[in-house]
Amino acid sequence: MVFMHREYKMLFIFALVLGIALYLSLGANTAIAFAVGAICSALAGYIGMFTATKANVRTTQAAHDQGAAAALSVAFMGGSIMGLCVASMGLLGLGMLYWFFGGDPATAHVIHGFGMGASSVALFSRVGGGIFTKSADVGADLVGKIEAGIPEDDPRNPGVIADNVGDNVGDVAGMGSDIFESYCGAMIATIAIASTMALDGLGSRESMMFLPLALASTGLLCSVLGILLVKAMSASKPDVALRAGTIGAAVLFVVAAYFVIQQVGIDYHVWCSVVTGAVGGIVIGLVTEYYTAASPIRKIAKSGETGPATVMITGLSVGMQSVVIPVLTLSAIIYISTSLSGLYGVGIAAVGMLATVGITMAIDAYGPVADNAGGIAEMGGLGKETRQITDSLDELGNTTAAIGKGFAIGAAALAALAIIAAFVETMTHHYPGFTLHLGNPEVLVGMFIGGILPFLIASITMTAVGDAAFEMIHEIRRQFREIKGLMEGDAKPDTARCVDIATTAALKKMILPGVLAVAVPPLVGFGIGPHALGGMLGGALLGCVLLALMMANAGGAWDNAKKYVEKGNHGGKGSPVHAAAVVGDTVGDPFKDTSGPAMNILINVMAIVSLVIAPLL
Amino acid sequence: MVFMHREYKMLFIFALVLGIALYLSLGANTAIAFAVGAICSALAGYIGMFTATKANVRTTQAAHDQGAAAALSVAFMGGSIMGLCVASMGLLGLGMLYWFFGGDPATAHVIHGFGMGASSVALFSRVGGGIFTKSADVGADLVGKIEAGIPEDDPRNPGVIADNVGDNVGDVAGMGSDIFESYCGAMIATIAIASTMALDGLGSRESMMFLPLALASTGLLCSVLGILLVKAMSASKPDVALRAGTIGAAVLFVVAAYFVIQQVGIDYHVWCSVVTGAVGGIVIGLVTEYYTAASPIRKIAKSGETGPATVMITGLSVGMQSVVIPVLTLSAIIYISTSLSGLYGVGIAAVGMLATVGITMAIDAYGPVADNAGGIAEMGGLGKETRQITDSLDELGNTTAAIGKGFAIGAAALAALAIIAAFVETMTHHYPGFTLHLGNPEVLVGMFIGGILPFLIASITMTAVGDAAFEMIHEIRRQFREIKGLMEGDAKPDTARCVDIATTAALKKMILPGVLAVAVPPLVGFGIGPHALGGMLGGALLGCVLLALMMANAGGAWDNAKKYVEKGNHGGKGSPVHAAAVVGDTVGDPFKDTSGPAMNILINVMAIVSLVIAPLL
Repeated sequence: MVFMHREYKMLFIFALVLGIALYLSLGANTAIAFAVGAICSALAGYIGMFTATKANVRTTQAAHDQGAAAALSVAFMGGSIMGLCVASMGLLGLGMLYWFFGGDPATAHVIHGFGMGASSVALFSRVGGGIFTKSADVGADLVGKIEAGIPEDDPRNPGVIADNVGDNVGDVAGMGSDIFESYCGAMIATIAIASTMALDGLGSRESMMFLPLALASTGLLCSVLGILLVKAMSASKPDVALRAGTIGAAVLFVVAAYFVIQQVGIDYHVWCSVVTGAVGGIVIGLVTEYYTAASPIRKIAKSGETGPATVMITGLSVGMQSVVIPVLTLSAIIYISTSLSGLYGVGIAAVGMLATVGITMAIDAYGPVADNAGGIAEMGGLGKETRQITDSLDELGNTTAAIGKGFAIGAAALAALAIIAAFVETMTHHYPGFTLHLGNPEVLVGMFIGGILPFLIASITMTAVGDAAFEMIHEIRRQFREIKGLMEGDAKPDTARCVDIATTAALKKMILPGVLAVAVPPLVGFGIGPHALGGMLGGALLGCVLLALMMANAGGAWDNAKKYVEKGNHGGKGSPVHAAAVVGDTVGDPFKDTSGPAMNILINVMAIVSLVIAPLL
Repeated sequence: MVFMHREYKMLFIFALVLGIALYLSLGANTAIAFAVGAICSALAGYIGMFTATKANVRTTQAAHDQGAAAALSVAFMGGSIMGLCVASMGLLGLGMLYWFFGGDPATAHVIHGFGMGASSVALFSRVGGGIFTKSADVGADLVGKIEAGIPEDDPRNPGVIADNVGDNVGDVAGMGSDIFESYCGAMIATIAIASTMALDGLGSRESMMFLPLALASTGLLCSVLGILLVKAMSASKPDVALRAGTIGAAVLFVVAAYFVIQQVGIDYHVWCSVVTGAVGGIVIGLVTEYYTAASPIRKIAKSGETGPATVMITGLSVGMQSVVIPVLTLSAIIYISTSLSGLYGVGIAAVGMLATVGITMAIDAYGPVADNAGGIAEMGGLGKETRQITDSLDELGNTTAAIGKGFAIGAAALAALAIIAAFVETMTHHYPGFTLHLGNPEVLVGMFIGGILPFLIASITMTAVGDAAFEMIHEIRRQFREIKGLMEGDAKPDTARCVDIATTAALKKMILPGVLAVAVPPLVGFGIGPHALGGMLGGALLGCVLLALMMANAGGAWDNAKKYVEKGNHGGKGSPVHAAAVVGDTVGDPFKDTSGPAMNILINVMAIVSLVIAPLL
């Protein structure tokens, strides 16, 4: 909470500057929309984190007093509140703005400000949270587990509190803002496309602008039903219950969407675009699960027999290979949905993928809750049995989190693409004949610049984690060395110092990526031209999607390979193979929880900033 | 040589199949050009490797008998023969074909076959050679240096012969074919653009088609003068001599190019494009040198204090950061050269960058020669003094090789871009109004597919190295365990078995990447359409350039960070920091010598295949 307060204070200054810039360039309405978006996003993150923190303790208690089923139920409810919160906040904020400005296509562009507000907050909480959580995690694990030889989450380790705080900050609040931003971005882009496109007889402009909100509301209801289904099935096996809830909600949504689209008088081709999005999201999630669970992780674990170097090589190649099917799936979604209903189809597919965000987010947030419950059980000394229950919940949480992560990347990519499409539509609306021909050197140069950005941001965020972890490691080592009786459990570690290191590092290092993401689009747009800006968005989208998938999946695979070894394979805990696997996991941490997720936001922030400044170009 | 014979046998079958396919689809002339290109490329690689092998032994001898200056002179001459060989073979082959077919714009497309032949050979020798060299290197280093604790290149290590063979196969022959292919590709693309473009008053079509050959011939002469300059300066410090030769040749070339362009009656704007290319190549090389030499490697070495995981994180982030300036330089070259003389300018810039290939290649090939001379000195027991001389030459070789690698990537990217531009020109020539608008879903889908390919090929090649190294490690461990007296130097290791493992792995694993690179363009072109193929080339170019730079520079930085530690920093050899640095170096090996260089070829092969099939689309 201390971190959140310091983070939000800094964010406030950043948002104020941006808000004033928007007010001066695009008028008061856009600035207000920006503020509303920023506040909604911050609230969604804050409430989610607040409930998650409470749910942590209650899950541990439930595991201790009532057993596995009750613990699952509590942990999942914690996640559900987060999920429903994200969806309702998005709908509420956007709905309000649509009520005031959306009816008239001439003022509809005001709504873009909302997206920019949401994205700015997401950028800060994702990047800052990611740096915080991983510097603490890497530091605590390396010194605690490897050097001091004490278990994970042992209260003697000075870095453990920072690590647990980080799980909430990065995984819950960060993920919440991230998905919130894609969710709103998809709707905003679709509304924007509908407000400027040639209609081609798909439906009336008003109904096509309203459709994304209608679909999202339908999806929210289906998510609630899905959550109730999980709760009803809490007696059966947890993974079955969670899967039934997700897929049940998606099927229900697809059916309901058909009637909604018919009701508002839109062509059924648009419904097919909804289906491609909903199905595509599930496919991408399942592929992610495969790469972070099945034979790839066994292969990584086996490569640990020849040391950490081969673990790295195998993990990186698994990550690189894992981009193939998700990106092909995205390509298929783009190809099918656009041939059915033009660029509007891409937007609707993104909305379709994100409509049931209430339940996918719930399942995603459940993972960190279970993880932290385990930490609390260990630190509170609640016994082996409780820890076993929380461990099994945590393991399932890792799988669902992997699915959620793949889904989040796919959704972010599609949402970004929809926003880029909206940008192109807006430009074409103002300048008929505006095209992004790759043979145009301006477009090409833009594409190259766009391609650099994900690499640069990944480098900056990874360096930030490396630097902060380096400081953290030295501090933890110092405490073990200087605080007498710490190893024996007689003295208490100075945990506040570790939290402070992580906080300061996170806040200091998130400025540069944040400024870059917001400043580069206007620099390129005004400096080289709108064609270069369009090319830049294309190049950045491609780079971000590829790096995001590669980093998330490699990181997840390393994490699970380590867990696989810890179960007793290839020598189990304490063996050289385990040490090699821990190296992989440590590299994977910033991959999957800092740099990888930063990619989602980066492309969305740049796309929405471009859309907002499009009328000025 | 055994490896080369087996490789060329397999290559022959592959080339035969492709040749027949070309004969059936595009006629006998293209098939003949293809065969000539393949033979020239193979010859350049073969002669280069043959001289390099001889130069290895002679350099060691010179270092032993006559000292450092003589050794430098011999090693550099070995590289020079390779460099001049590459340049003359390219000019000879292309010149001959131009003589027969180039005069008439209608038959000029036959020349594309030459590029495809050169690229196919390059693909095989680069990818196959890369897998060979790195599986041997990783295997020999991990078991020898870390587990058995014997020095690098110790004759007791069963993997050492395979490692040394690999240096020649991968670094000399592979690099030769790689640059040969970019060199010819740039000329072919420029001729192709000139044969179809709108002239815009830059000059006559004939002179513009002939200009690339004229510039390359001029560059070859300047390279010879540069080489003589190095030889004349061999008494001064070696790095000064090498740098004076390179920069001297480039300056001379730029001046001479001005008169050549005036002579053939072409606008001086085209000369400015030549200058951007020549200057850009040097800038990219110097940036590469910075990232693999100065503060980045000290940072990586320092991060070794907290173990191999932080070495990995720091190295990856250095690699990612290192893409920024080279890609911006490429963007500047593209922007300036096209605004001066259209797409023709990009081709001419590529020719300008590659014209002095004779000397840049010489300096590049000098590195592996010096490296192997060190290996021979160690194995031959020629004493500490000889080894010291070869080590200092090797260190300089690493720096020049880094410059050469950056240069090769920049040149390959620019050559590929020129070929892609030629593809677009050819399509526009056949179908006026052909544009690659990013808002066209076909182009977008193509771009995504193109973006996947570099990741997939990198994954396949890294897995190949990982798998082969795994086998190699087990074999070397077995020999140390089972061959009695091996550690004591009484028994000889079974080196042939290690060479065989590397050969078999390389030949088996290079088929899939090779087939993918050749088969995907026609699949996308005929399956989805020419717009998708164009988009695919754009996406693949972006992905290949970024990954190639990232992998080459991260790999080089890790390698040099290890060497920096070995000089006694952070505890020196045998310290935990050294062990951590070795892990980084081991991961860097397939990065910089297998997967990274494969990217250069991949994009060029795909571009030239697309250009060849363009008339059929």
